Amino acid sequence: GAGADNDLYINQAIVFIEDAIQYRSINHRVDSKSLWLYRWYYSRTCQWILSLTITVILALAFIEEPSSLTVTSDVRYRLPAWNPPCGLTESIELLCFLVFVVDVSVKSYLIGWKEFWKNKWLMAYILTLIVSLTDWIVSLSFFCKESVRIRRILRPFFLLQNSSMMKKTLKSINSTLPEMASVVLLLAVHLSLFTMFAMLLFARTKDNQQDKEWVVYFRNLPDSLTSLLVLLTTANNPDVMIPAYSKNRAYSIFFILFTVLGNLFLMNLLTAIIYNQFRGYLLKSVQSSLFRRRLGIRAAFEVLSSLKETPASAQQSCVSVGALLQVLQKTEMDSRCKQAIMRSLKMRSCDQLSAAQFQKLFEELDKDAIKQHPPSPEYQSHFMQKMQFAFGHPYFGYLGNVVALANIISICVVLVMDADKQPSERDDFFLGAINCFFILYYLLEMLLKILAMGLRRYLSYPSNRFDGLLTVILLILEIATFSVYGFPHPGWRPEFMGLLSLWDMVRLVNMLIVFRFLRIIPNMKFMALVVTTLLDLVKNLRAFAGILVVVFYAFAITGIMLFKGAVVPLGNTRYVGNKPSASVFSLWVNNFFIIFQGKKVISWCSAHFQAEVIYCLLYVLSVHLICRWAKIYFVAWWLISSVIWVNLFVALLLENFIHKWDRRCQRESLSDIEYQRTVELMFRDVLEEPTEEELMEKLHQHPHLQLCR
Amino acid sequence: GAGADNDLYINQAIVFIEDAIQYRSINHRVDSKSLWLYRWYYSRTCQWILSLTITVILALAFIEEPSSLTVTSDVRYRLPAWNPPCGLTESIELLCFLVFVVDVSVKSYLIGWKEFWKNKWLMAYILTLIVSLTDWIVSLSFFCKESVRIRRILRPFFLLQNSSMMKKTLKSINSTLPEMASVVLLLAVHLSLFTMFAMLLFARTKDNQQDKEWVVYFRNLPDSLTSLLVLLTTANNPDVMIPAYSKNRAYSIFFILFTVLGNLFLMNLLTAIIYNQFRGYLLKSVQSSLFRRRLGIRAAFEVLSSLKETPASAQQSCVSVGALLQVLQKTEMDSRCKQAIMRSLKMRSCDQLSAAQFQKLFEELDKDAIKQHPPSPEYQSHFMQKMQFAFGHPYFGYLGNVVALANIISICVVLVMDADKQPSERDDFFLGAINCFFILYYLLEMLLKILAMGLRRYLSYPSNRFDGLLTVILLILEIATFSVYGFPHPGWRPEFMGLLSLWDMVRLVNMLIVFRFLRIIPNMKFMALVVTTLLDLVKNLRAFAGILVVVFYAFAITGIMLFKGAVVPLGNTRYVGNKPSASVFSLWVNNFFIIFQGKKVISWCSAHFQAEVIYCLLYVLSVHLICRWAKIYFVAWWLISSVIWVNLFVALLLENFIHKWDRRCQRESLSDIEYQRTVELMFRDVLEEPTEEELMEKLHQHPHLQLCR
Repeated sequence: GAGADNDLYINQAIVFIEDAIQYRSINHRVDSKSLWLYRWYYSRTCQWILSLTITVILALAFIEEPSSLTVTSDVRYRLPAWNPPCGLTESIELLCFLVFVVDVSVKSYLIGWKEFWKNKWLMAYILTLIVSLTDWIVSLSFFCKESVRIRRILRPFFLLQNSSMMKKTLKSINSTLPEMASVVLLLAVHLSLFTMFAMLLFARTKDNQQDKEWVVYFRNLPDSLTSLLVLLTTANNPDVMIPAYSKNRAYSIFFILFTVLGNLFLMNLLTAIIYNQFRGYLLKSVQSSLFRRRLGIRAAFEVLSSLKETPASAQQSCVSVGALLQVLQKTEMDSRCKQAIMRSLKMRSCDQLSAAQFQKLFEELDKDAIKQHPPSPEYQSHFMQKMQFAFGHPYFGYLGNVVALANIISICVVLVMDADKQPSERDDFFLGAINCFFILYYLLEMLLKILAMGLRRYLSYPSNRFDGLLTVILLILEIATFSVYGFPHPGWRPEFMGLLSLWDMVRLVNMLIVFRFLRIIPNMKFMALVVTTLLDLVKNLRAFAGILVVVFYAFAITGIMLFKGAVVPLGNTRYVGNKPSASVFSLWVNNFFIIFQGKKVISWCSAHFQAEVIYCLLYVLSVHLICRWAKIYFVAWWLISSVIWVNLFVALLLENFIHKWDRRCQRESLSDIEYQRTVELMFRDVLEEPTEEELMEKLHQHPHLQLCR
Repeated sequence: GAGADNDLYINQAIVFIEDAIQYRSINHRVDSKSLWLYRWYYSRTCQWILSLTITVILALAFIEEPSSLTVTSDVRYRLPAWNPPCGLTESIELLCFLVFVVDVSVKSYLIGWKEFWKNKWLMAYILTLIVSLTDWIVSLSFFCKESVRIRRILRPFFLLQNSSMMKKTLKSINSTLPEMASVVLLLAVHLSLFTMFAMLLFARTKDNQQDKEWVVYFRNLPDSLTSLLVLLTTANNPDVMIPAYSKNRAYSIFFILFTVLGNLFLMNLLTAIIYNQFRGYLLKSVQSSLFRRRLGIRAAFEVLSSLKETPASAQQSCVSVGALLQVLQKTEMDSRCKQAIMRSLKMRSCDQLSAAQFQKLFEELDKDAIKQHPPSPEYQSHFMQKMQFAFGHPYFGYLGNVVALANIISICVVLVMDADKQPSERDDFFLGAINCFFILYYLLEMLLKILAMGLRRYLSYPSNRFDGLLTVILLILEIATFSVYGFPHPGWRPEFMGLLSLWDMVRLVNMLIVFRFLRIIPNMKFMALVVTTLLDLVKNLRAFAGILVVVFYAFAITGIMLFKGAVVPLGNTRYVGNKPSASVFSLWVNNFFIIFQGKKVISWCSAHFQAEVIYCLLYVLSVHLICRWAKIYFVAWWLISSVIWVNLFVALLLENFIHKWDRRCQRESLSDIEYQRTVELMFRDVLEEPTEEELMEKLHQHPHLQLCR
């Protein structure tokens, strides 16, 4: 009947508006039951459960069998990691898989059968689940003794498919691949030509004293290739050229030519190419988000305009205010926006809304909240007013910064003086006393500021929150110290007692004081600009970081599988010795010893996701002591983490920074009002509004919504 | 009289047009004698003498007393360098100074007294000359035994002041300095805060086994600062964190945080800032060149229009064709341009030229020459025509590439097979035979191509010239080999005979073959794009390279002065030992030994301008064995060469590449015609023509030219 139809339309409008708010696609089923399922699926609880499941299944690697989650990384000292009994992690895994099965079925149902076949991500999801479940069954049938577990490498896929941003980013990266491949090919040609040159140049001679270069770096083709590849990472520069250079200075021309062409030109060309491809990336992604929002709002308008209560007389379709109010009340959205929209709805004189008016109402969503700080309290007493003026003034804040700086400097002085003292000679009296004084000042500063600004206004500034929190923690630590060790007095020695020694307590206090010093950042203009750029970047970088996690995880699991058990404690072999050593990768050529080191680092890297470690690893590779597989593994790792990812990062940073910088002048005039900035807002004046025709064309392509007109 | 006046005007016009051609400023004296002097000063001979003088004075450092220009860099083996007698280099220096004195006087005279006081470069030039001459006198009065020679550090200034491009670039860099300084300040804050954290975190403990981190890297403030600074260059990563990481994996959080903030964010921010500042740099510099050209032409027009023979009746000033022809004949310019302008002048019907027409005539200067390849010979015989078709076809070139690739592969195979053979076991028969075959093919290819294209057309392609030259050299080498060692036969052993052994000859041939393989570049589209980008970049980079040479030279001379005599051979101490060693910077803690290494590298670097070596140097610094001065010296060096210069380079590369890429589509349609590209042409469609008012305003500001109107 009409009532049921109307209910359906209202529900559709609610869902479309929610889609618009969340920038979701509206291409899903729109019958009553599906709408209920859709809202349930995208409810906070369901999404939270899904995220938790993904986290749990990824975290399993830390407790599963070849895990290295121990306090020390030193294989000689570490205790055997806890080995969960067979079936524990497997049952957790099964639970996760079941959640994913539900997830994929609901998703597939909601987008409909026809759309399902077009959606490669969903098919890949189902395939991954099938493979994982099969592997799980195999695993259990071997009583967890099987050596290869494919499903582990597949796990990061679950993270990937759950984020539309990551999927979009991956598509972008994918479109850059041909150009990147060209440069990588160029690098390969460069490398191979120079390898041949090197082998011809540094050939074996009759005089054994003269061919050091040959012996160490260019003994055969794989060695030469590795030497030059490592030179490309600058890890063995200039060691690789020293023997030849000692013989004849002219040999350095070869190495300089190689480095300039490879490192300076080709590597930076990669940066240029990636930057060139990504220049429009942010803008494009924000533009498509805007389109989704406008489309959702328009769809809501269209279904509301088909409501039976609307007079069908008018040529132009329109929506009644009452229906929209009804929809709004049931819609889940930011309360500030909801109130603003309701307010402007009630202020309208006309009862009907045209499409443009409807669209305009929802522009409130795009606006950034102007943050209002609560007012300062108004004191009656003249004295209090003076106090309020004095301690609410910015100069009082600057004084606080100066005091914090003085504190830092005093700590620094004490550190320098105590640098070479034996622990038993140390006396913490001086530092204890001055810290006590400074912390009292901080407390006073906080209280006076609260007095001047009122607690709510004080807390509305993030810098004050940071400041206050650290002051309170410092105070608690100080009180705890005094209650255990008494007040500072000469000979207030660091002793080992209780949970934390006095020494540790004092160090912790000092560290917090150093950390608290960061409050100066908003007071320095350029620093503030840089920090806000970085924060924006972090926001925009989430998708990249997610992809990085996916790659890291896959590499780590592969590494664990490849090098499992390669690290064995070698009895009494001490790898650093008692003397101070500059490098663990020594030239003390003890085969066992270097294998031990290399493998150790590999397992360490594999399990702990450290990108920078690649330099040392290639360095290890250069001493030819690791098998071929490890070489391929690490070269792949270097290419992905160090070359491609870092360049992507640089491209994004350039993009962000240049946008920000261009806008700096405009911002400065508005600096009084704090905006809660989002990426969308940064580009607001560049974005193009989608036209009516585009929206309607897209709406008519909707696979499930049959528009009446 | 009027005739003398007319002569003066004609001469002025000639000089102004030459200024326009060379993009020079027109603000110089314009009386007859000065004009003669001006043309003499900018004549090819004079400028060549000036350049030679600059080269000579810069090159003096290679033979002056603490020079290290020896074949081997190893202090133990090298012979004492040739020490020129006192007075030899000094008298060469005096000659150079005299040339510079003439140069500065002529320059000062030509721009006039009033302008001279505004020109800081000229004053600095004079000051430098005075200081240098004083130092020279001091030097001679000490009979060359004085220890400090200030004039050496001042030498690169002569290079700097002679190039207007370099002065302009320096100004650009100078304007970027405030932003760079901000980021460097930020880096310093980052470094100092983390240093304090580190000192608190890795403090000395009672258990000597537990504080390895403290002992090695964070013993006191300078050590900690150095450790973290070196971590910023990634030279000691991950060595620096291994002791702490072995103790507790959580310590790695500190290092990861430091690296991510410092290396990933702040360092790349520097790239972003420099790129942002340099985005418009190229365009701006080309724009100002264009302005100078238009201004010169306009000035020539104005002086020619004041010629007495011109009818003063017309309201608009104009120039007679005859006068212009007279001027053109005496002007030194590219003959192609001159002919084109003359041709279009003669084709004009009207005898008078307006300013716009005059300007338009000289637009020929901005046009790029369309390179016409000479036609192929036309053969009568049908057979010859077929031959011509076959061997002039691109497929014949591709076949040549395939053959070259086959040759490379065969050399590679032989190299791999021979890799571990003793020199005495080697047999060059196989390689000799195949190389002989391949070189015959190359010769045949060259001859057939010449047959098909004709010699002149063949030589008009750069790829053919490259190819042909290498083929001829290979042929000569081959013939020389055969004449000395006979034809290849089994047991054709490499022996030591004559100037070059057979073994060396074969190696040389192989290297040339590898080098010849580069002819494939123009055949691969993307490679060709990259290579042309790089070539363009090299053109635009001359000014930067010049500044780099200036900085390198100053650093090298300072280094030589600071560390003179620090490198002494230590008797029998062998620093690498007989065993293969992975790194000369060993952890074999022998103080003398490491000082020796460090200093050796320093003097090496100082004297030989190697930017990359800084990594190893900071690495050496991290073992605290070099005095404080060296530390400051190398940190400054790292900042300038590695941080600032590399970022400037990246910025320029990005700028160039992005322009090129945007234009790629347009180029592809024109790819048949080879343009001789210049930077000006790259930007032609973006450049703004200066307006008439701007030109006239500038002309009226000319300090020496009094325009009649």
